[in-house]
Amino acid sequence: MQQENEITFVNIGNLWIKRGLNIVGPAFLSIKNGKIRSFGCMDEPRPRGRTVDLEGRAVIPGLVECHTHLVFGGNRADEFGQRAGGVTYEDIARQGGGIMATVAATRGAAEEDLFESGMQRLDRFMSVGVTTIEVKSGYGLDFETEMKMLRVIRQLNDAHPLDVRATLLAHIPDGPERGVMVNEIARKWIPEVVKQGLATQFDVFCDDIAFDARESMLLLRAAKDAGLGLRVHAEQLSHTGISGQAARIGALSADHLDHAEEDDLTAMADFGTIAVLLPGCGISMGILDLPRIEQFREKGILVALSTDYNPGSSVTTNLPLMGSLAVAYMGFSYEDAMAGVTEYPADALGLDDAGTLETGKKADFVVQDTADWRDIFYEYATPHVRRVYKSGEVIYEACGSGHGRSG
Amino acid sequence: MQQENEITFVNIGNLWIKRGLNIVGPAFLSIKNGKIRSFGCMDEPRPRGRTVDLEGRAVIPGLVECHTHLVFGGNRADEFGQRAGGVTYEDIARQGGGIMATVAATRGAAEEDLFESGMQRLDRFMSVGVTTIEVKSGYGLDFETEMKMLRVIRQLNDAHPLDVRATLLAHIPDGPERGVMVNEIARKWIPEVVKQGLATQFDVFCDDIAFDARESMLLLRAAKDAGLGLRVHAEQLSHTGISGQAARIGALSADHLDHAEEDDLTAMADFGTIAVLLPGCGISMGILDLPRIEQFREKGILVALSTDYNPGSSVTTNLPLMGSLAVAYMGFSYEDAMAGVTEYPADALGLDDAGTLETGKKADFVVQDTADWRDIFYEYATPHVRRVYKSGEVIYEACGSGHGRSG
Repeated sequence: MQQENEITFVNIGNLWIKRGLNIVGPAFLSIKNGKIRSFGCMDEPRPRGRTVDLEGRAVIPGLVECHTHLVFGGNRADEFGQRAGGVTYEDIARQGGGIMATVAATRGAAEEDLFESGMQRLDRFMSVGVTTIEVKSGYGLDFETEMKMLRVIRQLNDAHPLDVRATLLAHIPDGPERGVMVNEIARKWIPEVVKQGLATQFDVFCDDIAFDARESMLLLRAAKDAGLGLRVHAEQLSHTGISGQAARIGALSADHLDHAEEDDLTAMADFGTIAVLLPGCGISMGILDLPRIEQFREKGILVALSTDYNPGSSVTTNLPLMGSLAVAYMGFSYEDAMAGVTEYPADALGLDDAGTLETGKKADFVVQDTADWRDIFYEYATPHVRRVYKSGEVIYEACGSGHGRSG
Repeated sequence: MQQENEITFVNIGNLWIKRGLNIVGPAFLSIKNGKIRSFGCMDEPRPRGRTVDLEGRAVIPGLVECHTHLVFGGNRADEFGQRAGGVTYEDIARQGGGIMATVAATRGAAEEDLFESGMQRLDRFMSVGVTTIEVKSGYGLDFETEMKMLRVIRQLNDAHPLDVRATLLAHIPDGPERGVMVNEIARKWIPEVVKQGLATQFDVFCDDIAFDARESMLLLRAAKDAGLGLRVHAEQLSHTGISGQAARIGALSADHLDHAEEDDLTAMADFGTIAVLLPGCGISMGILDLPRIEQFREKGILVALSTDYNPGSSVTTNLPLMGSLAVAYMGFSYEDAMAGVTEYPADALGLDDAGTLETGKKADFVVQDTADWRDIFYEYATPHVRRVYKSGEVIYEACGSGHGRSG
């Protein structure tokens, strides 16, 4: 007896299962009950029953976006234009712009408005092939707003077909006494978040303009004791050494790393901490001095890519473009880029059922509109998604114009 | 009596008519028989009859793409990966890659295959809001293939809703005697193209690796005498002075201009030649050393932006992203960027009925999915098109996912 929930996709042009296992087609991929059942070349035995002919199109895992600030109020289009006119980020911050403008707008926003805009942004990520996404809090800087943001993220996860993973972010110190805020995060925010199940990860921005390394480690230890996965905004504007320190207590990832040093990387390699690089900041900030992959590759550190989507320093939902920038400017091969938007960000999120198409994993995958998976990086900033599947169900289908779009 | 072909779009959030005339909404735009009839604020008098409520969304002119190599055979994804691995463009050319790989593939391609891929590429341009596009020949380097490409471009114009404008491009010298080719272009190609009405413009690549300034001027003069509009690939890899020389005989635009000098710019300013800048080359080539707008602004030269879409040095159809790169890296204001993808490229094409929404012009416009037209540059590499109109008819409509996409 053939079950309806069993489908075999045949005549796949190119099938990326995981790093090191890229099947040159024609290939097949078989799913059952929303999970990957088997895969192989078309001349190998495959399950009988219902088939879908992909006519030579490539299939890749659903993309995994591991670092976003997707829930926010307001808009900072003015700032991008001001920077083009020569106004500095510091000037903008002094005029009440920058992160603090977003904090004010987010504090003032109704929960339902944050939810609505969040749903639209998730749609944009879905339309480029993302099936799992992380979203951070961090524009509250006070208990009530941080909890509001995390409630919105939970609602987004419930309402949207994407898997939405929440992270409590200690973003920047606010208030007259920074020690008071650090204490409150450790003793009130983290326990409350764990109690209500509002986040699975904790992240801290450690830098000159944010929390220092001592404060950050205190918070990371509190989060670890509470059972949260650890992430860290590290070595972005200056070197603090937090990436190495966080690695030693088991951080899943260190993100940014523009100013990482030898010791940091050695510790990350020793403890298996993922490096998350965020090249999108270059365009929104008008700079393009991006870290190269070689330093990580030499150490054996796995490198994930992310948009860092936020309204100020990286205003894009186009995760594949991060792969194009990485190939163009950061020494990534196509394989590095593909693993960097699928397998390694899943590792950074501590997920073992996303990012690859191995047997038994969730059937989260993308059918491209071309035969070669490399096209999503080669033909940059161009949609190559034909259909997105989440646990075996179609959650997004690109609409052709009916003019030239084939099949 | 109200005619069906008369429509007024109301409650427009922001209406960009042309540079210097941006109406902050709520505004209206009225069209009749496929042309712009009138526009204004919602509290001004407007035509009665059929209305479409845009609920606060922005309306901008259909984008104009003035420089593409959209018809080609083959694919050069390998090269982008090789360059990331440190192989130079010169090495690739020596191995038979680069432009000559595309020439070989285009010579070998069937006309119907070039047509099919061309239709798909036009769809991609349409999906980012382009309504008028220029396409060059130039991958033949022989009479038969150049004519084949121009026939395909004519078929694309006939079959696709976009206006497709053809340019005969003298790309690079080929064959044992370059003088023979120059003569053949002047005495055979240009007359034949004019006779068959296969192109309205002529373009020549003048550079160390292409035609020299003397050859280029000979060809430009022949094209001018034959009644074609003049364009030139100028000062890209080295300085030749062709931009100034071409300006003096009435060239509509000089494109690239990375190595333009004072004299060139003075001549361009004097003769009203448009500068076309092509920042997309940066990403595909892994470089990002882009010209700034200030040098053109000081001279009073109008600056258009284009993707330069081609399979090697600029592999993207995302024209709005060129505006984002221009704001991020080239000193453009938002207004410079919007005029640079609408009004000025229409000038470069010698078109007086595209690029602005003035009364009497073709009703080619884009309804965005947000209220602020700046979002197409600010939130970069992200689709913001809700609907594209060509001569008053809907030719493209973005499909929502049904999850969060509002209205």
